[in-house]
Amino acid sequence: MTSDKKNPLWGGRFAAGPAEAFQRFGHSLDADLKLWREDIEGSKAHARMLGATGIITEEDAKTLVRGLDQVSGEIEEGNFEWSVALEDVHMNIEARLREIVGEVAGKLHTGRSRNDQVATDLRLWTRAALDRCAAAVREVQKAFLHQAEQGHDALMPGFTHLQIAQPVTYAHHCLAYIEMLERDRLRLLSAREHLNESPLGAAALGGTPHPIDREMTAKALGFARPMANSLDAASARDFCLEAVSAATICGVTLSRYAEEVVTFSSAPFGYWKCSESFSTGSSIMPQKRNPDAAELIRAKVGRLAGAFTALTLQTKGLALAYAKDMQETKPVTMDALETLEATLVITAGMVREMTINRDRMAEDAGAGYATATDLADSLAKDGMPFREAHEVVGRLVALCEEKGCTLSEAPLDEARKISPLLTEERLAALTPEASVRGKKSAGGPAFTREAASRWSRVLGS
Amino acid sequence: MTSDKKNPLWGGRFAAGPAEAFQRFGHSLDADLKLWREDIEGSKAHARMLGATGIITEEDAKTLVRGLDQVSGEIEEGNFEWSVALEDVHMNIEARLREIVGEVAGKLHTGRSRNDQVATDLRLWTRAALDRCAAAVREVQKAFLHQAEQGHDALMPGFTHLQIAQPVTYAHHCLAYIEMLERDRLRLLSAREHLNESPLGAAALGGTPHPIDREMTAKALGFARPMANSLDAASARDFCLEAVSAATICGVTLSRYAEEVVTFSSAPFGYWKCSESFSTGSSIMPQKRNPDAAELIRAKVGRLAGAFTALTLQTKGLALAYAKDMQETKPVTMDALETLEATLVITAGMVREMTINRDRMAEDAGAGYATATDLADSLAKDGMPFREAHEVVGRLVALCEEKGCTLSEAPLDEARKISPLLTEERLAALTPEASVRGKKSAGGPAFTREAASRWSRVLGS
Amino acid sequence: MTSDKKNPLWGGRFAAGPAEAFQRFGHSLDADLKLWREDIEGSKAHARMLGATGIITEEDAKTLVRGLDQVSGEIEEGNFEWSVALEDVHMNIEARLREIVGEVAGKLHTGRSRNDQVATDLRLWTRAALDRCAAAVREVQKAFLHQAEQGHDALMPGFTHLQIAQPVTYAHHCLAYIEMLERDRLRLLSAREHLNESPLGAAALGGTPHPIDREMTAKALGFARPMANSLDAASARDFCLEAVSAATICGVTLSRYAEEVVTFSSAPFGYWKCSESFSTGSSIMPQKRNPDAAELIRAKVGRLAGAFTALTLQTKGLALAYAKDMQETKPVTMDALETLEATLVITAGMVREMTINRDRMAEDAGAGYATATDLADSLAKDGMPFREAHEVVGRLVALCEEKGCTLSEAPLDEARKISPLLTEERLAALTPEASVRGKKSAGGPAFTREAASRWSRVLGS
Amino acid sequence: MTSDKKNPLWGGRFAAGPAEAFQRFGHSLDADLKLWREDIEGSKAHARMLGATGIITEEDAKTLVRGLDQVSGEIEEGNFEWSVALEDVHMNIEARLREIVGEVAGKLHTGRSRNDQVATDLRLWTRAALDRCAAAVREVQKAFLHQAEQGHDALMPGFTHLQIAQPVTYAHHCLAYIEMLERDRLRLLSAREHLNESPLGAAALGGTPHPIDREMTAKALGFARPMANSLDAASARDFCLEAVSAATICGVTLSRYAEEVVTFSSAPFGYWKCSESFSTGSSIMPQKRNPDAAELIRAKVGRLAGAFTALTLQTKGLALAYAKDMQETKPVTMDALETLEATLVITAGMVREMTINRDRMAEDAGAGYATATDLADSLAKDGMPFREAHEVVGRLVALCEEKGCTLSEAPLDEARKISPLLTEERLAALTPEASVRGKKSAGGPAFTREAASRWSRVLGS
Repeated sequence: MTSDKKNPLWGGRFAAGPAEAFQRFGHSLDADLKLWREDIEGSKAHARMLGATGIITEEDAKTLVRGLDQVSGEIEEGNFEWSVALEDVHMNIEARLREIVGEVAGKLHTGRSRNDQVATDLRLWTRAALDRCAAAVREVQKAFLHQAEQGHDALMPGFTHLQIAQPVTYAHHCLAYIEMLERDRLRLLSAREHLNESPLGAAALGGTPHPIDREMTAKALGFARPMANSLDAASARDFCLEAVSAATICGVTLSRYAEEVVTFSSAPFGYWKCSESFSTGSSIMPQKRNPDAAELIRAKVGRLAGAFTALTLQTKGLALAYAKDMQETKPVTMDALETLEATLVITAGMVREMTINRDRMAEDAGAGYATATDLADSLAKDGMPFREAHEVVGRLVALCEEKGCTLSEAPLDEARKISPLLTEERLAALTPEASVRGKKSAGGPAFTREAASRWSRVLGS
Repeated sequence: MTSDKKNPLWGGRFAAGPAEAFQRFGHSLDADLKLWREDIEGSKAHARMLGATGIITEEDAKTLVRGLDQVSGEIEEGNFEWSVALEDVHMNIEARLREIVGEVAGKLHTGRSRNDQVATDLRLWTRAALDRCAAAVREVQKAFLHQAEQGHDALMPGFTHLQIAQPVTYAHHCLAYIEMLERDRLRLLSAREHLNESPLGAAALGGTPHPIDREMTAKALGFARPMANSLDAASARDFCLEAVSAATICGVTLSRYAEEVVTFSSAPFGYWKCSESFSTGSSIMPQKRNPDAAELIRAKVGRLAGAFTALTLQTKGLALAYAKDMQETKPVTMDALETLEATLVITAGMVREMTINRDRMAEDAGAGYATATDLADSLAKDGMPFREAHEVVGRLVALCEEKGCTLSEAPLDEARKISPLLTEERLAALTPEASVRGKKSAGGPAFTREAASRWSRVLGS
Repeated sequence: MTSDKKNPLWGGRFAAGPAEAFQRFGHSLDADLKLWREDIEGSKAHARMLGATGIITEEDAKTLVRGLDQVSGEIEEGNFEWSVALEDVHMNIEARLREIVGEVAGKLHTGRSRNDQVATDLRLWTRAALDRCAAAVREVQKAFLHQAEQGHDALMPGFTHLQIAQPVTYAHHCLAYIEMLERDRLRLLSAREHLNESPLGAAALGGTPHPIDREMTAKALGFARPMANSLDAASARDFCLEAVSAATICGVTLSRYAEEVVTFSSAPFGYWKCSESFSTGSSIMPQKRNPDAAELIRAKVGRLAGAFTALTLQTKGLALAYAKDMQETKPVTMDALETLEATLVITAGMVREMTINRDRMAEDAGAGYATATDLADSLAKDGMPFREAHEVVGRLVALCEEKGCTLSEAPLDEARKISPLLTEERLAALTPEASVRGKKSAGGPAFTREAASRWSRVLGS
Repeated sequence: MTSDKKNPLWGGRFAAGPAEAFQRFGHSLDADLKLWREDIEGSKAHARMLGATGIITEEDAKTLVRGLDQVSGEIEEGNFEWSVALEDVHMNIEARLREIVGEVAGKLHTGRSRNDQVATDLRLWTRAALDRCAAAVREVQKAFLHQAEQGHDALMPGFTHLQIAQPVTYAHHCLAYIEMLERDRLRLLSAREHLNESPLGAAALGGTPHPIDREMTAKALGFARPMANSLDAASARDFCLEAVSAATICGVTLSRYAEEVVTFSSAPFGYWKCSESFSTGSSIMPQKRNPDAAELIRAKVGRLAGAFTALTLQTKGLALAYAKDMQETKPVTMDALETLEATLVITAGMVREMTINRDRMAEDAGAGYATATDLADSLAKDGMPFREAHEVVGRLVALCEEKGCTLSEAPLDEARKISPLLTEERLAALTPEASVRGKKSAGGPAFTREAASRWSRVLGS
């Protein structure tokens, strides 16, 4: 970037240019460089509308569109020199357009302002980013489905408080994440839907006397409709907050899985193993295979939630309409959505290549009296009030702990003293496989095959 | 609250009770006390389902429902003694139920766990709170519409950077907030829709062997469907994050208006005036009328955003399924939604009773060369490229500043030297009224009457 | 609380009282009820100063102090009726004072305002809370020292990425937390020092014409000095942000330990075990001992960080001097510091009662080729460049993984092919005990006994 | 940056390299590129210590230092090719060092690890950044002092609730910010002091068997001492949180001033005016002078507080010692401190060039019955209890509002009916100048000249 061009915008009014330091502080080119496609797309739609409505001649409109296409090509090919002095993406492109098409370039800005222009650009960018994120969520879901299909019959302990609680299956665990991610995806798409209105034509804040056709530009840019109030159109950044909050919540989901990867791939657990592609080594401990990808995924929610905090502060208490504070929302929003997208991509890869240790998981699935609840349920099925059954099983567990044995190995005579219903068969049936098979309630681990099939149809994989 | 009852839950297993300090630290009664209606509602649905499916007898089910109704009545009337020793709302209610109906109370917990029970309670509570908030948003919208209708023809300056930019109307300004609030309302309702699935029947995490009917309880509680995965049902708190993020974004909207109230009711502005009902006095400056309500509304977004930060941290990296960390999400979520509801109620009242100073607003609407853009647009309409028109008007403004006159008072001969198009009539037309009338683009201030009518039909007021 | 008393403050000016809903919304009694001691302490200091400087008579000053003492006694004994209509703690106390001492009560407010009064109260409260928190940190440090002393010779694996990395000792691990907590304590005390200036006498914002002695009240209240600028004194809430940020950082420390407790007390690790006093049971899985205290401690950082976010938003962009937004900082600050104090108390108890499984930790301390680095260091000591030594050990580890053996069991002939320096003795020396003993660098695990002694002298335990 | 070099670190162990996408996701070069000075400084200190202790030969140490100096020069001159494949700054520099000095480069890493290396680098960087920020605060203070000296006798209204409350002076207002900034500066320096310990020598987490001299490297790098526990040294990132929280609190201070600039430079206020250097124009409204710098300064606190939220999430619940999550703390911490520094620099410039409209401020200083409190104080001085005086003045204000006159213009006969003490002279004395002169309490506006002199000595300007 250079900073030598004079900003023609303030030409008529200001004697002195902005202080050099402030120019560096105030420009938004870092974020704006990512907005050039949207800016040109918006300008082309605006130019065509100006032509169609007769505000400028059709010829001028065509000239502008042709010129914008040329600028687009130059940027695409890396032949475009960005100037900090021109402050932002809008002025950089317009200045180059003027070099290409001459004075007619000055007609492009008829009936609009940088305020509605940047709002349009940022909505277009955010919409596309949300779409990419939603698609990336799908890839993570597919990766989990792949795992679920590989591990249909793999037992795994279900935890509460990271204490072994009840046996489930690995597939059931993976399917839980598919459900969680589905809600995350719906939230990203809700954010997309709520933002999909066109601010273009609001001009600085109060519309324009030119007979512009806002429906036409809205349609050309894929918006559902023009925004209904020009002040709102120039002032609104709620869409940034919603997009980033949806990203943050998705980031929390990913952090939960990432934490499990770190924990379950530690030596004492030994349930899961990341592929080498998503691990790193150590400079001093050559034997290490560190779950770096999982740790980075876990940490990324920080950046996302930090972005939400930032946006909330940036937009709190802003009087209508445009204020320069809003410029700060651009890099934050864009960084957050790019972070989420990259994190999803890495997660999809990491999940897909995860390998599991069935024996270790199966071993723990039956450990820790994990089938005690099944025993209580079994007693309750035979009419014992659940709270009493719970008490009975509690006493049996205490006995087994004392004896150092499993529930099915409990000394039968002592067990019967606790309750005559604690029969040999009842205790013998307490295997993790039976437990999982017996959980016939909807949404339970006995139905993961059906659930996986259903998702397979949805995800098409 | 008392802390003398022994918690029967851990009866069979623990020799020592929890340390006294930890009991105080660990209980969740403060938040739970607000969940009793939902807890009893959920228990009644569960009991009826247990009876309908034959898991318990119909007679037992009826006894349980009757007992729960009695507990409900006692709490309603303030005749219920809450015990900290019983930890939470669930155990307090069940313990009392046992006193009322005897041992059959122990059958209520068949096929469920506190994990799905609390998830159900919190979803029900949050759903109702979101509904109340959405309704309260409607009241704020109606109050703004009332203001818009009162001030259709009241001119007001539109600002950018809090600098007077262009004339708009007070109604246009109020209608902008109606639009902003509409998106806030949609977000609250999206959060409602995304959470409206029933976790009941997921039990601790892995479902239950009892032949429960999750569709039946889901329907009885107004949920769209049962959640599809039991691990997810017990682990998910994303709905808290979504509800609170929607509340926070709405809080930002309210903070923007509140800031305007503080600024616009300051003496130098003098545009708006809060009613006495929403102002306070000073202990040392008897003449003050302080916009306290607005300041509190402005500050409330802090509590809301703080809640989102808290929830993000509380749920980051939580391994499935239930962990005690989730208990902390309850008071935070509930406080945030109650805060939003109260803030909306106060805002509705403050807005409705706002009075405006038409003369002050009209005076500023034409100040600061606020119609300069209109002049530029007028030149552009006559074919001058917009950028050139901008330059011309800039020079005229500089001239007028030097002369200390308005645009319409500009010395005509000097104006014509800048451009021959700067004719007397063109300059004479630069009134704020004409500016507003001329902004014919959709969504602009010329159409506030139509916009108000449209909202009047929607809001029915 | 009742809401029937009329607020005498606004008496002369306002025709209508505040709307009922706004009264509920706007009062700050919930937080203020915790400030009554500080409020009375401040008022007594102010009254004595008014008497000493002759602004009021000594007799009046004594009457005021006596009256304030009586109010204090009434509140202490629970015989005080708080009124919401009187808004805050200040007016409640002054109203009661008037009932006790009559009209002279009206002289108490001479030369001060609620603005400097509440600032004084909140600084006094926060100072005391920081002192309590700092003392509570000391208790946690003592508990860790107790653990360190119990486990001087207990081996434990050191982790990076939760992968077993190198052997350390349990004492070394505990001492790390003592160091972390020491910095947390210093931060709490820095916050205390930075806030310890007296705002009293700033009055509403611009001081007072009465010849008050601010040094005298500052000294009486234990402040280092009066604040130097009256506008600053009335406007500053940075002390809330600093106190809460220090609390949050301490909360992060506690969350790290709490996470370790949850992980290390899971069955697969089995290193540590919480006492029953700090665990809870399960309503459906009678055998569970859940580390609830650790999970709650881990989650509390959410509430703390949420408070910081809230305060930042509440005070962002507030024009000087007092604004009602500041009222919102009170409950947030107070809740955060009370949360930290309670969390520290519970942590101290949990740490003190922690029991460890030495065998499990020792077993893992030598697992996972944890002494590979020692081997590389040993080769480097004999002159092999470290990076080459690293490469050599890496190949040996690969060999051992293939053979399924430990480093000391490596087949010597194949080892020698990798490097002739891989001799039998060198490999045999690779025990975790030797590793720990050999880490002679300052701050390393070989010196935990000295470190514990040093801390024992500091902590006096 | 290129990504073609193979990472030699994992050489012995990993068959496959990391996935391409993960390499991009996992590297930290963007932040690391700013750490090269600190990395080389730390390596030189380490190399010299290795030579001094005989761990390597003095000759080798000199070779390493010379090589590092060459690398330093190459980077300084822009002749260094950074490789993403080498992951971070440490490996990039070491790889280049190897090309320069050959195999002896492999000895540099003796007795250290990337874990203590990066902790050292980041502490050095943060320390320097805090020093720069503290110095920049001084510049802002000097700018405010400059303003205070220019405006000693300029009256200005003091506000509460943005309502005109009492007269103060512009100097008093500026001095308030000097005080606020002084506490901000002390917090930055406290953060500096708390972090100024050397982690170098902690190696991966458990120290090293090499006889390193940690005191020597600590001293060479300007640290007060080595950190006392190796696990802590490798795990601690509390210093990032403290530095960023101090930065955030300073950011809140700046946002308050920035808000005032926006408000007070709006047309209705018209008190202050930003210089053109720190303002910008508008693309459509040529007459605008927008306080963009102030708005950006106001918004920056978002980025700062967002960084604190991010860091809290990133480090919450991290088990000791190093985890990859910590890598994410680097860019966040560095961005926050660079943001604060830039914001302070711009603020200093903006403050220094601010111009004030004395007449407008003086006009408002006496408006709104701003001297009503002085009247109440005057009555209280003559023995009327303050609360009664307050009531009396309240009634007088109501009378004057009704009559549309100022306090000094109150009809004397009606005034005397309210209280006989409301005499002509008493009312005539109620000028803003007299009010300011009369505020003789310490820290009040009557003493700004003394306060400015004191600060002038401190700031040396």
